[in-house]
Amino acid sequence: MSDRIGELARAFERFPGIGPRQAKRFVYHLLSVSGADRAKLSELIAKIGSDVHQCPECMRFSNGNGPLCAYCADPARDDALLTLVEKDQDLAALERAGTYRGRYFVLGGVLTLSGKGAIRERDLIRVVGMRLGRGLKEIVLALSATSEGEHTSDRIRELLAPYRERVRISTLGRGLATGSELEYSDAETLRAALAGRKET
Amino acid sequence: MSDRIGELARAFERFPGIGPRQAKRFVYHLLSVSGADRAKLSELIAKIGSDVHQCPECMRFSNGNGPLCAYCADPARDDALLTLVEKDQDLAALERAGTYRGRYFVLGGVLTLSGKGAIRERDLIRVVGMRLGRGLKEIVLALSATSEGEHTSDRIRELLAPYRERVRISTLGRGLATGSELEYSDAETLRAALAGRKET
Amino acid sequence: MSDRIGELARAFERFPGIGPRQAKRFVYHLLSVSGADRAKLSELIAKIGSDVHQCPECMRFSNGNGPLCAYCADPARDDALLTLVEKDQDLAALERAGTYRGRYFVLGGVLTLSGKGAIRERDLIRVVGMRLGRGLKEIVLALSATSEGEHTSDRIRELLAPYRERVRISTLGRGLATGSELEYSDAETLRAALAGRKET
Amino acid sequence: MSDRIGELARAFERFPGIGPRQAKRFVYHLLSVSGADRAKLSELIAKIGSDVHQCPECMRFSNGNGPLCAYCADPARDDALLTLVEKDQDLAALERAGTYRGRYFVLGGVLTLSGKGAIRERDLIRVVGMRLGRGLKEIVLALSATSEGEHTSDRIRELLAPYRERVRISTLGRGLATGSELEYSDAETLRAALAGRKET
Repeated sequence: MSDRIGELARAFERFPGIGPRQAKRFVYHLLSVSGADRAKLSELIAKIGSDVHQCPECMRFSNGNGPLCAYCADPARDDALLTLVEKDQDLAALERAGTYRGRYFVLGGVLTLSGKGAIRERDLIRVVGMRLGRGLKEIVLALSATSEGEHTSDRIRELLAPYRERVRISTLGRGLATGSELEYSDAETLRAALAGRKET
Repeated sequence: MSDRIGELARAFERFPGIGPRQAKRFVYHLLSVSGADRAKLSELIAKIGSDVHQCPECMRFSNGNGPLCAYCADPARDDALLTLVEKDQDLAALERAGTYRGRYFVLGGVLTLSGKGAIRERDLIRVVGMRLGRGLKEIVLALSATSEGEHTSDRIRELLAPYRERVRISTLGRGLATGSELEYSDAETLRAALAGRKET
Repeated sequence: MSDRIGELARAFERFPGIGPRQAKRFVYHLLSVSGADRAKLSELIAKIGSDVHQCPECMRFSNGNGPLCAYCADPARDDALLTLVEKDQDLAALERAGTYRGRYFVLGGVLTLSGKGAIRERDLIRVVGMRLGRGLKEIVLALSATSEGEHTSDRIRELLAPYRERVRISTLGRGLATGSELEYSDAETLRAALAGRKET
Repeated sequence: MSDRIGELARAFERFPGIGPRQAKRFVYHLLSVSGADRAKLSELIAKIGSDVHQCPECMRFSNGNGPLCAYCADPARDDALLTLVEKDQDLAALERAGTYRGRYFVLGGVLTLSGKGAIRERDLIRVVGMRLGRGLKEIVLALSATSEGEHTSDRIRELLAPYRERVRISTLGRGLATGSELEYSDAETLRAALAGRKET
C-alpha cells in the first residue's frame, strides 16, 4: 500500500520556499477541508495550463483569450520602449508603480554565478527583432540589484550586442530605496545616490 | 473570461501560513512545471480524501488499508495509557521521541481563549468509553505549553470529569526545554524545573 | 547604602538600543574585568569631551588638534558643494563611498513627524552664509529615504528659502539599492528607478 | 595626536554583544550628552569595583555593606540546599521565580566544548566544604539546557565526586518550557516531558 500522505507532501516540497514540515501541514490542511474544496483545487491545478496561456510577445502568463496579453495588445502603449524583467511578478510590480507605458518581455529566470538558471534567449532574440520593425528605440534591463541580476544583465548585453547600433540599452537607476538609511547603505548605493542627485 | 491565476492563488491563500504573495508564486511555479507534473499533483489532491482514511480509534489520518491505523492495531502497545494530542504532527513528534508505547487520540484542534476552534469532543467520549473497557488507567494531556493548550486541557478535564474515579489524568512535565537558558526562562518554567529536579 | 549596580545599569540603559537586560549585562561585564580596564574606560569617558572637539564649520566631532576638522581644513575639497547629513556616521559612510569631494555639514539629528528631534538650525544658517562667500553653488540634502528624513528635508528647504536664488538645493538620487529585488520594491522606488535609468 | 573616538569605541566593542558599529554609536551618544552626565558615568564605572563587593560565600556581586550578601546572611534560608548557577543574572531569575529558599553559589562562567571558559573551582570546593558543616544535603546544578551547560555540569560532578556519599547532586527538571509546541519540540525534551508527566 502506498504512502499517499508522503507522496503529496513531497509534491508540495517542490513549491518555492516550502520545506518538509510545511509541506506536511499542507497535506493535513487538505485532509481537514471538504471533499468539494479539494475537488475544486484539483481541477484548478489540472486546468491552469490550458486556462492560462503564455503571450507570444512578452511571454508572460495571462488569462487573456486573445493571442496577445492585454499589455501587448494595447495600441496606446509605447513601442519605442521594451523593459526586460525576470518574472511575471516583477512585471506586476512595475505596473503597480504606474508610470511605465512601454512594452515588456519576461525572461523567465535569472542566471546564477554558478552557471545555473536559464532565460528565454531564443524568444528574446525573436521579440527584439520583431520590435525593431515597430520602432523600438530602448531596451530597459529591469533586473534586481543583486549579483544574479547583474550577471543576467551581462549575458543579455552579449546577446543584444548585434543590435547596439540600432537600439539603446539601459538599466534601472540605482540609489536610495525607500527606507534606506545612509549609515547602513553600501558604497555602491551611496555613489549612485550622489551621482544621481536631483534638484528640488 | 475568468481570472484563473487569481482563482488558484486565492485557493492557495487558504493554505496554513501562506499569504497573497507566496500564493501567486505557487501559481507561477505550477505554470513553469510540466503538464505531467501538474496532472500528477491534481490527481494526488483529488484522491487524497479516499486514499487516506481516518482511524476510527485515534482519529489520525493514515495510509493504512485496514480499518485501524498501525498504532491502534498493534497488540503490543500499552492499553493502560492514552495520550491526547492536538494534531497528527504532534503524534508523529512523540513517536520520533521513541519512548512512548501507549495509545493515542488526536483532538483535531485546540480551543482558543476567544472561543474559536473545535476539538473532537464526541469522538473523545466514545473512545475513552471504549478504552475503559480495555484497561485504560491514565489519560495524558499532551497539549502545547501555550495558553491555548492550557485552555484546551481545561475543557478536556471538564469533559472527562465523569471518569475521574476510574482513570488518572496527567499532563506533560514542564521544565527546561533543550536550549533553554536560565536567564531568559520565565518564572513558571523555572518553578517547574526546580520542583522537578532529578538526582544524577 | 545605595544600589550601585542598579545605578550603573540605568546609566547604560540610556545608551542607544540598550534595554534593561543588556544594561545589567554590561555592569556584570565591567565587574568581571580588571580594575585597570575599568579605570581606563572611566578615564576615556571623562576626557572624551575635552579630547574630542566639534569642528565649527561642519559640526562633526573630531580628534583634530587644529580649529577645523581634516575635511574642512583641506584646501583641495570643492567649496561649491555642501552636503548635509544627519549624523557623523552618515558622513563617514559617504566618505567610505569615496567619490564625494565637497564639504559637509552635520545636522545633529532629524525631525520626527510627531514634532520631536532637533537639528542645528542656527549653525546651518551661519555656515551656509559663510560658505556662500566662498563659492557655494549647491547644497545636497543627504538624508535617509525615510519619512523622518523627508520631513527634515522639508524643514531645511524652508530654512534655506532665502538663499534659493543663489544656491541649488538637491537631494540624493532614489532607485534600487544594492540587494533590492523588483518584486519586493515599493512603487516610489520603482518609479525613481525607471525615471533614473542609465544607458549602459 | 591620538584617536580618542576610536579608542573609546574599541573599549565598548569589548562589551558583551556589541559590534564596531554600535560601539561607535555609543561614543557619539556620549559626545551628545552633557559633560555632567559623562562625569557621572565615568565616576560610576571608576567606583563600581569598590562600591560593589563579591560575597565570599555565593560569590555574587552585591551592594551589601556587610561581609555576606543578603541571601547568604539570611538565617531563614535552607542550609540543606545549595544551587549552582552560571552567573548573577541566573540567580536573579531563580529568585524572581519565587519558590527557592535555599543557598546559592555563582560559578562565574561555563566551560565550552572547545575548552574555553572557566568556573570558580577552588571557591566551589571551599564553599561546599564549609556548607557540609552546616547541614548541606543537596547540590542543585542549575545550568542552562545547552551543550555548554551539560559540559559544565559534567565537570562539576567530577569535582564533587569526593562528596557524593555525603550529598545528593541533582539537575533542574527538563520538559516543555512555557510556549513550547509539541510539533517543534526535540526528542529529548519530549522524552523528559513524558517521563515527568504530572497528575492533575
